[in-house]
Order: sequence, then structure tokens, then C-alpha cells
Amino acid sequence: MRPGFAFEIVARDGSARSARLLTPHGVVETPAFMPVATFGAVRGVAASELEALGAQILLANTYHLHERPGEDVIARAGGLHGFTGWRRPWLTDSGGFQVTSLGDRVKVDEEGVAFASPLDGRRRLLTPELAVAVQEALGPDFAVALDECLPPHEPGETDAAAGLRMRAAMERTLRWAERCRRAHARPDQALFGILQGGISVPLRRESARATVALGFDGYCHGGLGLGEEPARRDEMVAEANAELPPQAPRYLMGLGRPEDLLAGVALGIDLFDCVLPTRNGRHGFLFTRRGVLHVRNARYREDASPPDPGCDCPACTRHSRAYIRHLLQSGEALGARLASLHNLRFYLRLLEDARAAIRAGAFEAFRRERLDEMAEGAE
Amino acid sequence: MRPGFAFEIVARDGSARSARLLTPHGVVETPAFMPVATFGAVRGVAASELEALGAQILLANTYHLHERPGEDVIARAGGLHGFTGWRRPWLTDSGGFQVTSLGDRVKVDEEGVAFASPLDGRRRLLTPELAVAVQEALGPDFAVALDECLPPHEPGETDAAAGLRMRAAMERTLRWAERCRRAHARPDQALFGILQGGISVPLRRESARATVALGFDGYCHGGLGLGEEPARRDEMVAEANAELPPQAPRYLMGLGRPEDLLAGVALGIDLFDCVLPTRNGRHGFLFTRRGVLHVRNARYREDASPPDPGCDCPACTRHSRAYIRHLLQSGEALGARLASLHNLRFYLRLLEDARAAIRAGAFEAFRRERLDEMAEGAE
Repeated sequence: MRPGFAFEIVARDGSARSARLLTPHGVVETPAFMPVATFGAVRGVAASELEALGAQILLANTYHLHERPGEDVIARAGGLHGFTGWRRPWLTDSGGFQVTSLGDRVKVDEEGVAFASPLDGRRRLLTPELAVAVQEALGPDFAVALDECLPPHEPGETDAAAGLRMRAAMERTLRWAERCRRAHARPDQALFGILQGGISVPLRRESARATVALGFDGYCHGGLGLGEEPARRDEMVAEANAELPPQAPRYLMGLGRPEDLLAGVALGIDLFDCVLPTRNGRHGFLFTRRGVLHVRNARYREDASPPDPGCDCPACTRHSRAYIRHLLQSGEALGARLASLHNLRFYLRLLEDARAAIRAGAFEAFRRERLDEMAEGAE
Repeated sequence: MRPGFAFEIVARDGSARSARLLTPHGVVETPAFMPVATFGAVRGVAASELEALGAQILLANTYHLHERPGEDVIARAGGLHGFTGWRRPWLTDSGGFQVTSLGDRVKVDEEGVAFASPLDGRRRLLTPELAVAVQEALGPDFAVALDECLPPHEPGETDAAAGLRMRAAMERTLRWAERCRRAHARPDQALFGILQGGISVPLRRESARATVALGFDGYCHGGLGLGEEPARRDEMVAEANAELPPQAPRYLMGLGRPEDLLAGVALGIDLFDCVLPTRNGRHGFLFTRRGVLHVRNARYREDASPPDPGCDCPACTRHSRAYIRHLLQSGEALGARLASLHNLRFYLRLLEDARAAIRAGAFEAFRRERLDEMAEGAE
């Protein structure tokens, strides 16, 4: 990695590994979960609270910040670190996934992604060069190359047609990766490449080899978590990992449930992000050692126990299931917030525990125990 | 006051006074501001945060908690203190004001307030006895008698007609106060009476004298802040206070702006509550030493200064006007929350400063200085 950065693997356990990822804004112990701060804030949660929960690095969405307040405003405020008050490491996505999620209003060609802004309806074009320029202005420690991310199957599509479509997107992602690589000039910012190739082993392998040949500071597994079977996804990650240099960090984008994170760690993934902790929290779904607890269920109406006994989060140490249920039923904002705080702590602590297990050489036993406990179901 | 309670005046300065209000759940230094926890939570703010902001006592709305989750659920959880995790003092209102705010669906007669529940449409009847029973079940340190609270003028009404209407409501409030007094049996809960009488000096005086004759642990000024001139309101408070025993706490219900609180303190008020800090915060209005700052204004788009320089709240010590503006513009929940936290701290600190000024014998100079500063306008 470039000056100011390092990725020091401190323990290996099977394919799993634990490392210290050094950045200009501090160390990230991996494997690590990155809470999603779409607009430069994790939904309803302040920077000081994220520190207390054990967050080490946040992910912000380039596209959303480009639209509002604009990267120029953030750059003049000292980048994401200065603008938001979160002064520890940041990673931004490339904006490609958000933009292509805009649906019918999107047209992708070799130049980039053309779309109509939902904010003002005006046509915009996100090119690899612009994705890099915006991220250089936002100033995260880690930027990500623009990719073309497609679902592995379109309705009514033949396998052959899907294969051609995925190959074309994978190859375009490589050409965009090269353009990003060339455009990127900020020396105090690492740049990650993204692997594509859908759920095809040859495409994933080829994507990984060619992206590594271009040379990046780290590698992202893109285009997964789009409905494929978990076993198939694990195969894609494992096959691509076999092509990646061991000394570079690996990031599995957008995933997922606690069991998905444990599977990723087992395969040697170092970084994760997902909106599930906050999104599910807002809907009253609490992650616990014993699986997901739907706290709005009437059975918790008078349940004085904490959401997840043994959890050290601000919700579990002071409030009951009955209270959180009441707040959610009443539409009181504190309910969604306490649920989000708990879920974030659950994810962050799960990876703290995974790191400890890897360093103790006992990751598989740890993973098995956690999966068994979660399968028991919340009481 | 009854056993377990005391109201020890420690300083007087003109009509203003500062006291220690002892309760079974701790001491409240007065004059004090009570954040409003409608559903048993201050909008989006956790109990631990309220402690850090300097809150001493919270107000909950009897009517809302009666509807959901029901006082029986809260009683079985150990009352408000046990159910919510806020273990310091609580005060509840009687529910009358909320119920009569339901508009057309309300019918008041001697028995009580009949209304259709917005939750399920069913007819309910809130009587003085029920208001006391619900509050005894909720278990706050301070309960409040049911009153009939009317606006001092109806559209198109003659002064004479308004006067008769206000007299009838004041007299009914006295009869209800007597019924509440008789119904109230919980020895570890203080009961406050409410003064009515609109903006008529004779009615206010009469209401105060008769309520004191019934004998309560403290007295509330009700029916103010409904559009009357501040000077007229001050007159009502001063006239009624002259009839109240000095050794009982006085609570000015539902008010108001910082200047209203300072006026109330000058007249010898001990307790205040208001939803303005959180409600205005959600809309981007920040209370500052220099008056109200509308942080959504475009002029703050790149303003790196804290909302209120010199403020020690979680928003001002870490975040800029530009960031809070961006969050509010983006609909990100953290924006409303940071604004609410700041405004709550502003109110709580204003009364901390008022207490210090009274104890230093310099309240009027302090009040004048603050009013002058606020009049300068936020930069």
C-alpha cells in the first residue's frame, strides 16, 4: 500500500485473517464492520455514539454527497473528517451502485452512467474520472473505483444471454478501473478496485486476475448479495480470493446478515458494510445472540428483560423490550434509535469477537457456536 | 409537603426564588425546566443523554400513556421510573389539556371530559377520579389535578360571554380539584392543583384562593400561553402568586420561549415545561445566546462555526452549522436530534444560570443581559 497506509496481518486461522489496517486517520482492526453513513451520518446516530459503540471506520455514499451538499462544500470544510466530526477513517463507495439503482432513468455506456437526478430531474453523467474526482474532494481514506454492477439474471433471460451480459459488464468494469487508476492522484488516499463477474467462476477469476494486474491498494467483491444462494456467493468469494494478493485488504460490499459476515470472515474477508443494523432496527428487528427478535410482537408488551441479555449497548444496559416496543408502537423516534444502537453494537461486537477468535486460532469453533445459538431462535 | 418531599427555598432575589425540591427520587434544583417526554421519552433522546444534558425531572403526558401502552402495563413495570429507565423525578399532567385539544370530538360536562379516542374511535370519559387513578398507576413523583382549560376568547364571542364561560370553567376546575384531592390516596406522590381564570385578575385571584383553601402540595398556573399578551400573562401570574403560600412550588404550564421562562422566574415560578426545544429543533430553529438561528438558511451552508459558540452541548462541541444544516436538508434523522439536544441544553443551562444568578442576588441584571443579547439576533 501507499505511504501512510499499511495492512499488517497479525493472525491467520484457516483462510480467515486478522490485521491492523493503518490509515492517515488511525488504525482499523480487521475484520471490521463499517456502519453506513449515507449522508455523512449513520441514520440518527452521532459520531460520539459511534465511537462508544466501537466503530472504527464509516462508509459514506459518494453519490448522495455529490448531490447534497456537494463535494466542494465538504472539501472546503476539510473533507468528510472535518465536515462530519467523525475524524477516524472513512471509506466512500464510487456512487455507481446508487446511480444504477435509480432504475429506468439510467443509461450506461462506455463513457459512464447517465441518469436523471431525483433531486432536480437534470441529466447527469457519472464517469470513472468524475467518481474519482468526487472522492478525492470528499477526502476519505479509501476511495473505490467505478464499476458496472448488474444483477446476475434479468427476468426471462437465457443463461447464455446473461453470461454475455455479465462478461460485458465485467470487462467494462476493468476498463473503468483502468481509467480510475489513471485519474486518481491524491497521495493520501488509497484506491480500491472492484471485482465483478456475477455468479460465474471463470468470470470472477478473470475479473480478479485482471484487476490485480492493474494494481490497487485493496479489492472489493462487487455484485454479490443480489439474490444468489449463500453457498454460491461463498464460492465466488473463495475463487476470486485465490487470485488476490494476500497482503491487500478485501472488502465484501453491501453484505449482510450476521451469518453472511461470519461466512465472509471464514473466507478471508477484511471489511464489510451493510445498512441492515439501522434499517432493521427502525422496523423493530433486533439482532441477538439467539437470532432476530421482532420486538414489536405483542409477546414483548410486558417483557422487562433487555433486548439481548449480555449485550453492553446503551439500549440493553438500561431499557427493556417492553419500553422499546412501546416507543416503536407509538412512533416515538427514540425507539428506532435504541434499536439501531443495539443492532450496530451487535454487528461491531460480532466482529470484535471474530477478531479475538482468529487471534486465538479458534474461529471455526466460534463461528459454529454463534450459528448454533442464532438458530435456537430468540425467546 | 407530604413525607418524602420538601421544598427548601435557599435564596430569594426580588420575587424570584431558588429552592431544593426534594422527592422520593432525588432533588430538583429550582427554578427548573422539565423536558417533555410525551410517550415516556423525550423525542429521540435517551435517558442517559438527558442526564448528561443536566435534566433533573421529566414531564410525561398522562393521556398518551393511558392510551398506549396503558397505565397497567407501566404500573407492573415499576411505574414510569421502572418502565422508562429514567429513575429521577417525574411529573405527569392530568391529561385534560391533551383531551380537550382533540377538538370536535370532545364534550365536557360536570362528570368529566367525554371524547372519541383517536386510536380506536371509541368513546372514553376522563373524570377527575380517573385522572388521579391513572397518575397513581403511572407513579410519577408529582401528579396534577384535572382542570377545564379554555381559551380566553372564542371567535365572535362578547367579552361578557367570555367572562361567564371562563368563570364557569374556573369554578368547575375547583370542583374537580376537590374531587381529585379526595380521590388521591398514594402517599409517595405529591398532588398539584391547577389555577384557571383566563386573563381576568379577579378570576385568577379567586381561583388561587379557593385552590389553596383545598390544600395541595403545589400549584400550577394553567390556561396561559394561549395567545394572550406576555405582559397580561405576567400580570395573571403575579396576581395569583400573591395568593399562593410561598412555601409551595409553583409551576407555569406549557411555557415557552426563553424570554417567557425568564419572566416567569422573575415572578417567582419554580417549574416550567415546554415542547419548544425539541419541536423547534426538528424544524431547524436553534436557540442561541444571540436569539433564534434558523440553521436551514442558505447562509449557513458553509458555516464551520458551532450552532452557539460557548455552548457545551454534544452538537456545539463537535459539529458545525453547515453539517447540521446539511443533515436537516437531507432528511437525515441526526440533524433533528442534534438540534433537539442543543435546544434542550440551552433551556436547561438557561435555568442553571438563572439559579446561580438568584443565589448571587443578581437575577435582574442577568435577565436584562440575556434579553439584550438575544435581541441582537443570531449572526
